[in-house]
Amino acid sequence: MITLLETTLASIPPADEAAAATVQRRLDQKTKPRRSLGRLEEVACALAAIQGTERPRAAEKAIVVMAGDHGVAEEGVSAYPQEVTAQMVANFASGGAAINVLARQAGARVVVVDMGVKAPIPGLPGVRDLRVGPGTRNLARGPAMGIDEAVRALEAGIGVAAGLADEGVRVIGIGEMGIGNTTPASALTAAFTGLPPAEVTGRGTGIDDATHARKVEVVARALEVNRPDRADPLGVLAALGGFEIAGLAGVVLGAAARRVAVVMDGFIASAAALAAARLAPRAAGVLLASHRSVEAGHRAVLQELGKRPLLDLELRLGEGTGAALALHLVEAAVRVLEEMATFEGAGVTDAGR
Amino acid sequence: MITLLETTLASIPPADEAAAATVQRRLDQKTKPRRSLGRLEEVACALAAIQGTERPRAAEKAIVVMAGDHGVAEEGVSAYPQEVTAQMVANFASGGAAINVLARQAGARVVVVDMGVKAPIPGLPGVRDLRVGPGTRNLARGPAMGIDEAVRALEAGIGVAAGLADEGVRVIGIGEMGIGNTTPASALTAAFTGLPPAEVTGRGTGIDDATHARKVEVVARALEVNRPDRADPLGVLAALGGFEIAGLAGVVLGAAARRVAVVMDGFIASAAALAAARLAPRAAGVLLASHRSVEAGHRAVLQELGKRPLLDLELRLGEGTGAALALHLVEAAVRVLEEMATFEGAGVTDAGR
Repeated sequence: MITLLETTLASIPPADEAAAATVQRRLDQKTKPRRSLGRLEEVACALAAIQGTERPRAAEKAIVVMAGDHGVAEEGVSAYPQEVTAQMVANFASGGAAINVLARQAGARVVVVDMGVKAPIPGLPGVRDLRVGPGTRNLARGPAMGIDEAVRALEAGIGVAAGLADEGVRVIGIGEMGIGNTTPASALTAAFTGLPPAEVTGRGTGIDDATHARKVEVVARALEVNRPDRADPLGVLAALGGFEIAGLAGVVLGAAARRVAVVMDGFIASAAALAAARLAPRAAGVLLASHRSVEAGHRAVLQELGKRPLLDLELRLGEGTGAALALHLVEAAVRVLEEMATFEGAGVTDAGR
Repeated sequence: MITLLETTLASIPPADEAAAATVQRRLDQKTKPRRSLGRLEEVACALAAIQGTERPRAAEKAIVVMAGDHGVAEEGVSAYPQEVTAQMVANFASGGAAINVLARQAGARVVVVDMGVKAPIPGLPGVRDLRVGPGTRNLARGPAMGIDEAVRALEAGIGVAAGLADEGVRVIGIGEMGIGNTTPASALTAAFTGLPPAEVTGRGTGIDDATHARKVEVVARALEVNRPDRADPLGVLAALGGFEIAGLAGVVLGAAARRVAVVMDGFIASAAALAAARLAPRAAGVLLASHRSVEAGHRAVLQELGKRPLLDLELRLGEGTGAALALHLVEAAVRVLEEMATFEGAGVTDAGR
């Protein structure tokens, strides 16, 4: 049987470099010195390549926030107790979290998905239930997920992206919530890049030295126990990932298949995107990096993806907050392209540089 | 006779550090790990210190774009002919320039001021005429302005800021237009910092190697001819500045006197702000740096002011475009402070970090 995952992986189109070149020519006719809007111009061209059009759009946007719990939390790797994951999902539902505030400002809808919180709070309005299970197993003792669970999470994410594409969304920001989830993100980064655990394991929401040392040791143990094989990205993701991480990887794949741009938030969302890019290299083409997190492993993930972040604001919150802030810049790039006058139209002398 | 400039310099209040500390305490109760919103939290505290309130505001915002021509253009220091200054003012008036597009997106009004364009295009709607003269004199041959002209330009800027403050504007972005004006900005930077001309003179809108060498030589000549005395900032500004630069320095002083925050755009606007800070050191307290321009001298100016830019997007356009982009972040900081739920209000367990 051919699965949704397989058809999605096979249907991702290549970047449209011709559209990008046309957009650069259009930008060069605007009333400004050539390339003087720097990275905004880069973003406009990237959107054209992703969306396959010389008239890219960014006004229709959403932030997908996926939540899940992690068996590895029992190793004491986080400063926060596990119930905070469910509490924060409730906070998302009532609109009081940072991502609600920042998405509202950016004009982006927030799509909250429960991918597998341990003890979900029932009856929350607007939270999509795509639960794979009540949290993953402890990756320091064996695989966090079975292959079948990872595929279910990936396909759930593909479905979320397809639904948003159907509704006309052209840019999706990806964010997450899951107490303990910088640990699987570090393990995935170590497995995919080959870097040692100490180099890709940071302090998450703010742990002390002793907890950090334990966390590095947990990541090292996860690699020893699971012996991930880089040539099998689905196996790596299942062993070391999480439900929300696999779900976001699915969002990236689903978006890529539909020519929708994806703005990555910080370390965990970017690690999910790296997993997607290992499953389908062309998926890397739809990714934009929003910000450089203070998390140690984030730099390694972005380098592996070949992406340069737009912002460097020392954020370490997650939820999609960096992605929401970067959406202003992505939309600015499109507005410059669509709304600025040309030298000819405005009667401004063009020095031709 | 006591002048407007003197009363303004004398009336600038100190930063309200108590308000900033209260804002940090408020932020620490929000549903996020302490300080996890990084530089956004810094901005919220800075706004509180500037505005003198624990409830800072950023929704009421404007971009002041001042234009002027420069006698030094006759030295061939720019890639663009001088008539482009007036043409771009017309482009601002008709809403087709980059700053119009980006300010519209940010919800900021654009205030265009002709401080002394050489041959202004008559009858442009919405352009304020505060002209000091038809362009400055060539600073490579003598002072660009007389002291009286510099004072008139400063007082014009003070008046613009006071008018905006009266209308309820709480954040002002400052930008400029003036063919050749990176040359006076470099000369001012060299004079105020003591750095050699070659270190603070860049390529402006995009000049070739030969033009750049000539520009460095022009800046060096300007310093030799005018012998600026750092202890006399008004004299330095008059000798090496420009009408729009002195006007923007006045906007900073006027804003500082009224507890209005100022978001600096790139190199030229920041050099104007440095002049303001030399006239009244407390004025530096109201400044926020929007972005790091690719201009060589910008880094030196920001270092001298002790400001770290929010963005690094390789912009080199001016007009206030970087400031407009940063306004999204400034407003985000205030929204986080005002709209986010607290741990207590949302029923989220606080790990107390």
